Order: sequence, then C-alpha cells, then structure tokens
Amino acid sequence: MTAPQAADVVVVGGGLIGTAIAWQLRLTGRSVVVVTGERSAAASGVAAGMLAPVTETTFTEGALLALNQASISQYAGFVAQLEEASGLPAGLRRTPTLSVAGNSDDAAQLAALAAYLDRLGLDCERLTSRECRSYEPLLSPTIRSGLLVAGDWSCDNRLLWAALVEASRRAGVLEVPGFVHQVESEHGRVSGVVLADGTRWMTAAVVLANGAWAAQVGGTPPIPVRPVKGQILRLDPVRMPPPSLTIRAFTAGQEVYLVPRDSGREVVVGATVEQLGFDRRVTAGGVYELLRDARQVLPVTAEYVLSETSVGYRPGTPDNAPILGPCELDGLLLATGHYRNGVLLTPVTATAITHLVERGTLPEVASGFTLDRFASDRLAPDGSAQDGSAQDRLAPEQLAPSGSPDPPPAQASATRGTT
Amino acid sequence: MTAPQAADVVVVGGGLIGTAIAWQLRLTGRSVVVVTGERSAAASGVAAGMLAPVTETTFTEGALLALNQASISQYAGFVAQLEEASGLPAGLRRTPTLSVAGNSDDAAQLAALAAYLDRLGLDCERLTSRECRSYEPLLSPTIRSGLLVAGDWSCDNRLLWAALVEASRRAGVLEVPGFVHQVESEHGRVSGVVLADGTRWMTAAVVLANGAWAAQVGGTPPIPVRPVKGQILRLDPVRMPPPSLTIRAFTAGQEVYLVPRDSGREVVVGATVEQLGFDRRVTAGGVYELLRDARQVLPVTAEYVLSETSVGYRPGTPDNAPILGPCELDGLLLATGHYRNGVLLTPVTATAITHLVERGTLPEVASGFTLDRFASDRLAPDGSAQDGSAQDRLAPEQLAPSGSPDPPPAQASATRGTT
Repeated sequence: MTAPQAADVVVVGGGLIGTAIAWQLRLTGRSVVVVTGERSAAASGVAAGMLAPVTETTFTEGALLALNQASISQYAGFVAQLEEASGLPAGLRRTPTLSVAGNSDDAAQLAALAAYLDRLGLDCERLTSRECRSYEPLLSPTIRSGLLVAGDWSCDNRLLWAALVEASRRAGVLEVPGFVHQVESEHGRVSGVVLADGTRWMTAAVVLANGAWAAQVGGTPPIPVRPVKGQILRLDPVRMPPPSLTIRAFTAGQEVYLVPRDSGREVVVGATVEQLGFDRRVTAGGVYELLRDARQVLPVTAEYVLSETSVGYRPGTPDNAPILGPCELDGLLLATGHYRNGVLLTPVTATAITHLVERGTLPEVASGFTLDRFASDRLAPDGSAQDGSAQDRLAPEQLAPSGSPDPPPAQASATRGTT
Repeated sequence: MTAPQAADVVVVGGGLIGTAIAWQLRLTGRSVVVVTGERSAAASGVAAGMLAPVTETTFTEGALLALNQASISQYAGFVAQLEEASGLPAGLRRTPTLSVAGNSDDAAQLAALAAYLDRLGLDCERLTSRECRSYEPLLSPTIRSGLLVAGDWSCDNRLLWAALVEASRRAGVLEVPGFVHQVESEHGRVSGVVLADGTRWMTAAVVLANGAWAAQVGGTPPIPVRPVKGQILRLDPVRMPPPSLTIRAFTAGQEVYLVPRDSGREVVVGATVEQLGFDRRVTAGGVYELLRDARQVLPVTAEYVLSETSVGYRPGTPDNAPILGPCELDGLLLATGHYRNGVLLTPVTATAITHLVERGTLPEVASGFTLDRFASDRLAPDGSAQDGSAQDRLAPEQLAPSGSPDPPPAQASATRGTT
C-alpha cells in the first residue's frame, strides 16, 4: 500500500455541485482533490436544467425560496466567470418559462399558483389560450390558460458541467476517479478519506457532494438523503421546429416540462418521480407517460426523434431542501440533498461552502439548511424545529456557527419532478 | 488491384434469406460466397418473428397464402436441420397466436376476419373476452373478443439468424463483409460482381437477397422494391410476468402485436408502417403509439423495462409479395421483396432458390412470384397480369422456366405491419 497523499480539501463527488465547489475552493489557493465517483451515473448529466425559483414555488417555501432566488441572482455572474475561466459555453438561456394548463382542472391549479405567487410578490403574467399560442405557436390549441414567468430560465446542465470540469482542471483541481467509502476521523475531527480501491487521502476538510449517494459513505453522521428516481427523455426536433420557451404544463393533473436548448437539437422532457431506490431501468410506462403528456401540450413532439431515455436520482431529503454546511463531525462539510434544484442551486452552494471554509460561517441565506435541523432533539412533539444546534461541536477556528432561522416546512410532492 | 476471385454462387446480402440460401446451396457442393452488407442494418435483426400465415391472411391471398403455408409447413424440419448443423437453438416457438379486439369496432373487424378464414378453410377458434383471459390472464379486461390460431407460431429471428450464420460457416460458406455495387454481365449473362471497395468476384450465378436495398445494385433489371420503415420496441419484463402467447390486437382501429420469447426476458412490440425511404430515426410518436396500444391490450407492459427501440426496413413490392427466381439477366436470381413475411418465408425461399439452381425450375408454389409479373407488357389495361413471361430469355441449361399462375393481387395496407 502506498503512503497516503494529502490535500487541504477532498471533495466527494464530481457532479455539478462537487465540481463547482472544488473550483471555487481552489481559487482561494487551497489544494483540492475531487473524488469523482461514477460521473455517468450522476444526476448532473440527466437533469433538464430548469432554473425555476418562481414556477417551482408550489414546492418551495420560506427559506428555500430565498435560497433559490439567491442562486438565480448569482447565475449570470457565475456563468460569466465560468465561461471566462473555462473558455467553454456554460449553457445559460435567459428566455422566459411558460406554464400552461391543459384542462379546466389544470387551469384552476394554475390560477391557484398565480394567486399564491401574487401573495409572495413574485412576478408572473396571466395569459389566455390565444396569448399562450402567440408566445409559443407550437402549443396545442386545447391549452386553457398560461402563466409567463420572465425570471425562470434554463441552463444546459451538460454544457455547464463540462465547463465546470474544464475550469476546475485549469485552476489546478486534482481529479481522482473512484469512490470514497470511508471518512476517517480522530478525536471527532476529519483526518482523511479511504477510497474503494484502498487509496487514502489525508485532509482536514471533506466536502460531501455526492448527491443521492450521500448516505452510503462510512464514518459520517447519518445523512437523511434518499434516491428519488426520475425518468427523462431527450428529443431531437430534426426537421421540425423546437419550442422557443421552456414549457411547463399541468395536463390532466400530470406535470410535464419541455426544455429546449439553444442548439435547436435537443428538447428535454421530464420527469417521472418514483421512490424505488437505485433502479436504473427505463420503464415502458415512464416513457409512455412522458411522451403522452408532451404530445398533449406540444403535438409536434410526436415528429421529433426520441434520441435518449435516461434515469437519474434526485437526492431527496425529509423536507426536500438541501443539506448544507457543517455537521457534528468537525471538518465534514455537507453539500447534498438538492433534490429537484441541483442545477439551480449550484452557484449558491459553491459560494456558501467557499464562504464557510474561508470565514467559518455559512452565509445567512444558507444557514437554515444545516443537517442539525433534522436532529431528533431539535424536534418539538409536534415535529416542528426548536432552537438549538450542533454548532458548539464545531471547531471555531475553521467552521464558525451558522444562524438557524426556521427550516423550510416538510413537503410531500406527489406530482412529477423537476431538476 | 488484386486478381478477381471466383465462386459458383455469390449471394448478395447476409440477412436471414441470404444466409439461408447460401447455407442450402453450399450443401449441394457448390462454392458459395455471401457478401454480407451491413448486418446491423438488416430487417432480419429488427423483426419480431411472427410466423403467421393465418392471422396475416387479411393481407395475403391466393398464391401468397399458399407460399406462406408451404413455408410454415417446412419450418419445424428446417429448424431441426439447422439446429443439428449449427449446434445452436433456432428460436422456434410453437405456441398459438391470440388475436384480440379492443372495442366494438375492433370486434367487428375481428369477426369479419374469422368469417373470411372460415371461407378459406383456415382453422381458428372464436373466443369470448373471458375465454381470452383464461388463455392469457394478463390481457386487459376491456378486451371484447378473440380468435385463437393454433397454427400461427413465432421464431426468435435473432436466434434463427445466429444459427444460420453458424451453420453456413460450418458448411464452408465464405463470408465477405462489404457491399455489392454492380452485377457484371457479358452477352446477357452474369459474369461477376464488383464490391464497393473495388474487389471483384467472378461467378455465373448471383442471388440478390439484400431486402430493401435490392433496387440499389447496378447492372440489374429494375427491381420494384422500396423500403417500408417500421419502428419496433423490445421490452424486458424484469420482475413481471410476460405473456405466454403471441398477442395480436386491433385496438381502436390500430394493430399492435406482442411476441414473447422463451427466455422470458423479451417481448417484442411492433410495428409502425411508414413510407419514408431510409430514415433510421426512432420518433417520439412511433414509440408513443406502440407503448399506448401495448398498454391498452396488456396493461402490465407499463411495468416492463423499455430495453430497445429500433428501426427496420421491410422490402415492399407493388403487390407486397416477394420477388423470387430468375429474371431477364441470365444467372441473376432474385430473393427479395419479402415485406412483412421475411422470417416466415425463409425456409421456402431457401428451398425454392436451391431447387432452381439444382433443377433449373422454381417449385410450383414459388413460380408465381417471378419479377416478370410486373413487366408492363404483361399488364392488361386494367392493371391485371396476363400470360407471358421473360423465361425464354433464360439459359435453359441453368435456369428453366417457371410456371406463371395468377400473381397475388396488389394490396395497399394502411395498418400497422408485421415482420
């Protein structure tokens, strides 16, 4: 066995979140290693890349909405820095999102969402069926109503990811293929990691950014992350026109989205939500439902080529909000559980973890998302969170306490998902 | 340029038909070369492998029905010889086919088919919905009626093909990868072939068995074969049971079939019919319709894994019957245009072409399928065929005249296809 190597920080997971964190940390002058895991299995490559703090709002409230909005406000600057650093396009597309309703029940649901957005002061424009089709002529004439949201964009997650990998390489991040099986610690402090092949890295700081697999690393406190399977399709319009806007739809009670790319050669259609553990199989039923609903909303999709079917695992948490920052094991920093919002939350997660490593505290907007919100001794008999934290177990010289505003309420989403 | 090599027979096309002919001809002691073409593109690997002379009867009449029946009567013997020769399983599955009707219109269509089969003296058993489900419990309870046909079987075309390739290799057939671009002739007689890479083979007998690409070889008379695109799916039942019988269905006017394999790991669902030339793309609409119709008939298919989507080209002809035997170019033997029945017609085609080479005549059952039935001077003003043939242009010592019974009537099939 060779002697262990050492790094200031070891990032576990080479997806969007892990790579962005590694890149940003490396820019602070630290030596950074990313243990990539199996990149082809990561949700980062499967996601559609909607950046939708507003139209996702039914599923996000309070602190999570603020986090989502903080991230989209950082997006353009983050992408500009990334494209400069990588020399690659990062795929940001600042066209509006159009949410539409297929039948009268769907229209009622959309109207309720619009009223809710009004109460939150979020900007959206109600549209008639005819107005919807003037924005997007490919929409089915049976569409009842719509909601135009100028602030909900998209980002081609594969381009974004490739740019992040390139930028991190150029900055000097070391990529190590493989899997971290164990976080090692001494006296309650992280001392290193052990990979599946026996390789060891010594480090005082480990960032756990391996998405749905976060609960599978040994030597950490229990992390309540579970895989939420999503099936997703990629269509190629070939000789037909693609939609120009991101389309979200409620159609006969089902939710479907269609996200076009600037290339004109890809429209991502998603996504099913299934709680099945790690089952990587594409089912006939999943593909059928997505094709059916896409066709209901945008009939031209029947002519598109079905170019890819894939499966990803959203990292779900008990409240569907991410788990960010320190935990009871000193030096172990968490950046997982992003569920449906991993692409959206990439910039704010990278800046929050960098802020934490640099200054010892999480930024205010991220401070409600620490693991300790799930600690049983923080739950009142009614299940709500109480004051108190795990912060006094952290080493103040490295990781200062974060504030603890109210955590976002638990959500049970039975509808189709977003990533 | 190297000197041309020579063979007694050059077979153009390494699909089911070409390989079966090459194998059978090699057993007569002749030296045989197969120029394989691109095997991965062949319909032989895409087809579902229904052997359905009876349930296909709406689309086949007279001479073609007799040819189909002759072939299925040879099937068990052919497969036994093949399995013996190759040491491989050839995939024949002698379970009945169950045709079912989804709604009352479909039931009327099925009843008309049953009446027609009765008139032809073809054996079938009318079933109620309940009886259908006693044979196949996975069927949807909404099925109206059914027709059980004991004589319509299936054959796993991929196993059949692999066994044919192995048997032909063991027999000493030489496989040459590549494409025949030109048939060469002198004084109206075949003298050889030229491949795309410039290689030449000298031969006095060329068998054209390249399916939908038959019209693309230079130096032959015009051959009226066109590609009829079919999209087809393969599902893997995984943890769910597969159907035990081949299921054909009319469902809301659409035709769909589901063909299970003995392995229990594959159910083939097909097939669309599109007249689009060589367009190898799988469309969202094609996949959607197959999944929709399969689910309508057998709801459990929604749980199956979608393991493959593929496209094949049926070699269509003006009357949807094959083109077999000699033509005006002496030494050029045709074995193409099998449209929806290539797997079924493999044995009878191989024996007919071998009979022709050995004895100079086509067997009676195949003699109505020569190319000259399409000659303009054989068409009466109403488009029907008249007596007369191109046979006197053939060299009697090698290729004796074939009889000319009435050709099968032209068919325009607007429904979903079979292969």
